[in-house]
Amino acid sequence: MSLLEKTVAAIEPQDNASRAAARSRLEQLTMPYWALGRLMDLAEELAGMTRSQHPPVTRKTVVTMAADHGVTASGVSKYPKEVTAQMVLNFVHGGAGINALAKLSGARVVVVDMGVEADLSGLANEGKIISKRVAPGTQNMATGPAMTRQQAIQAVEAGIEVALTLADSTDLFGTGEMGIGNTTPSSAIVALLTGCEVEKATGRGTGIDDDQFTHKVSVIQEALRVNQPDHADALDILAKVGGFEIGGIAGLILGAASLKKPVLIDGFISTAGALIAQALSPASTQYMIAAHRSVEQGHRAALTHLGKQPLLDLDLRLGEGTGAALAMHHVEAAVSILTEVATFGEASVSEAH
Amino acid sequence: MSLLEKTVAAIEPQDNASRAAARSRLEQLTMPYWALGRLMDLAEELAGMTRSQHPPVTRKTVVTMAADHGVTASGVSKYPKEVTAQMVLNFVHGGAGINALAKLSGARVVVVDMGVEADLSGLANEGKIISKRVAPGTQNMATGPAMTRQQAIQAVEAGIEVALTLADSTDLFGTGEMGIGNTTPSSAIVALLTGCEVEKATGRGTGIDDDQFTHKVSVIQEALRVNQPDHADALDILAKVGGFEIGGIAGLILGAASLKKPVLIDGFISTAGALIAQALSPASTQYMIAAHRSVEQGHRAALTHLGKQPLLDLDLRLGEGTGAALAMHHVEAAVSILTEVATFGEASVSEAH
Repeated sequence: MSLLEKTVAAIEPQDNASRAAARSRLEQLTMPYWALGRLMDLAEELAGMTRSQHPPVTRKTVVTMAADHGVTASGVSKYPKEVTAQMVLNFVHGGAGINALAKLSGARVVVVDMGVEADLSGLANEGKIISKRVAPGTQNMATGPAMTRQQAIQAVEAGIEVALTLADSTDLFGTGEMGIGNTTPSSAIVALLTGCEVEKATGRGTGIDDDQFTHKVSVIQEALRVNQPDHADALDILAKVGGFEIGGIAGLILGAASLKKPVLIDGFISTAGALIAQALSPASTQYMIAAHRSVEQGHRAALTHLGKQPLLDLDLRLGEGTGAALAMHHVEAAVSILTEVATFGEASVSEAH
Repeated sequence: MSLLEKTVAAIEPQDNASRAAARSRLEQLTMPYWALGRLMDLAEELAGMTRSQHPPVTRKTVVTMAADHGVTASGVSKYPKEVTAQMVLNFVHGGAGINALAKLSGARVVVVDMGVEADLSGLANEGKIISKRVAPGTQNMATGPAMTRQQAIQAVEAGIEVALTLADSTDLFGTGEMGIGNTTPSSAIVALLTGCEVEKATGRGTGIDDDQFTHKVSVIQEALRVNQPDHADALDILAKVGGFEIGGIAGLILGAASLKKPVLIDGFISTAGALIAQALSPASTQYMIAAHRSVEQGHRAALTHLGKQPLLDLDLRLGEGTGAALAMHHVEAAVSILTEVATFGEASVSEAH
């Protein structure tokens, strides 16, 4: 069996007995019934994922996957593609949004080169990033497949390997990404896997105007026409209209799920990766926590398809893992409610009549 | 001048120059324009409140105000009123929801006895709570005024005193409360100050059923009929259909605003206190941050009247300050974006074309 096949085979559903035990305690806490709402839902989920009444979540890692996209040649982004590599340097120097928010949440940031066009081997050799580069950027999906099927599998397996490597020092994963142009493949994936129209799956990315939006939609439609991806084959979709970092995110999620570890899904691009993971292993969704609802309009359809209600809704549209880093506090809050709040019996508080 | 008059006179609007300076930096950060959305809005607000480009927010205090309510005699709550004092003990012992969430956010919890029916002088003498008790619970507002006008002023001034006392060791305040029956006076206040109907301002509190809800609405309507509060006089409203902890929360907000310190408003009852503060000093709203949208249906109308969009929406309905404690992480996140993220120039990242 391949690493991908082995990993998918190892993913088990949440444990119902652990969920029931957590629910029983949560119902007895010194507060009106389920008065901490979605934090209590989350506590029950975490117990089901980790098979523990003290779900471990303190060791937190945001994995930020970076790659370039051939489709930038079709003029889909406001930013030059050089920014992908420049932002990797910014991550390494600690100057980006993800650095600030991860630091506040007590999470470490691990940057992975999944296929940035620039040569980042120096950073990899110094141990400042992990190199899993598949190729120096994808091909332009508007004129042919973004990558080969073999490269798609390589990208997903690279994400699995990252999860397996980091698992010894990580209780809670967060996904993140950087790749100029990557809302374009993400919209294509969301349209294909949720069945929503391309116009509805496409957003403003880094801030394009109406004409640029119309152009972006037409580029995605052209990519779908040229490539004819098979809706029922997630690896075919990833190969034809995906990206290396999107495959890496899918793999990271599968790897985390195979190890029964929760993973916070960041924004729109991460959710496209999550849809690929879901298609490869429906059970893997039971280890996903949706961090936030992005400004990107396709995110709503994607989250609905995943069956996830996001924790936050703060008009974020940065990516990098910023929403996941922010939401890590909520995951820890859910656990602290389960483990630190007294029951009516323990605290001698009268119950409702 | 009274303490209340002096405090209201000292409240100044946010500083526009500080807001503009913060906005200018936020617009140059290495990310697409305003890509961290409402966290960036909040960062600008915090600069305006504190007159600083490094708004201090690390020393955090949740003030949980407790009091009893005579209206419980009319059968508005599922819980016996003894629970108010029992929960104060639970707070002191660290076993309540607010203890767990404040600990996670690095905030201290200060419990204030604003008028609990039980004798809590032992806890006050040991320094475990602050005693500002106005009386051992309010009178039943369904049959007459909840308190005298003098007691209403005393409650608000007690809240101001608490803010002034804690200000030396507090950068960021959060409001909280405990008082069996206190959604009933809160609904009355929200109906009077927002102009919405009593049915729309009333919620399920700790979890009452349809018949109990109809009864609760009729009790509030009776209280309004019996007392005829003056819509234009917030102290008259507080006296006739309020509560001691609600007055204390209004005072805490006014005190924080007079010192140019931000204050996170917790849930429905805290927002009723915030509406009283707004009526006494419209400028005080510029120092309020709405932590979350509660399940209580009247909360929506109250937040709209305050002009605030809440940071969180997680089906919380516990009170105690739990939503405020949780949202403190977001306030710190907003500051870290303003102070720790590099600009395009600093990080040598190419800008959009």
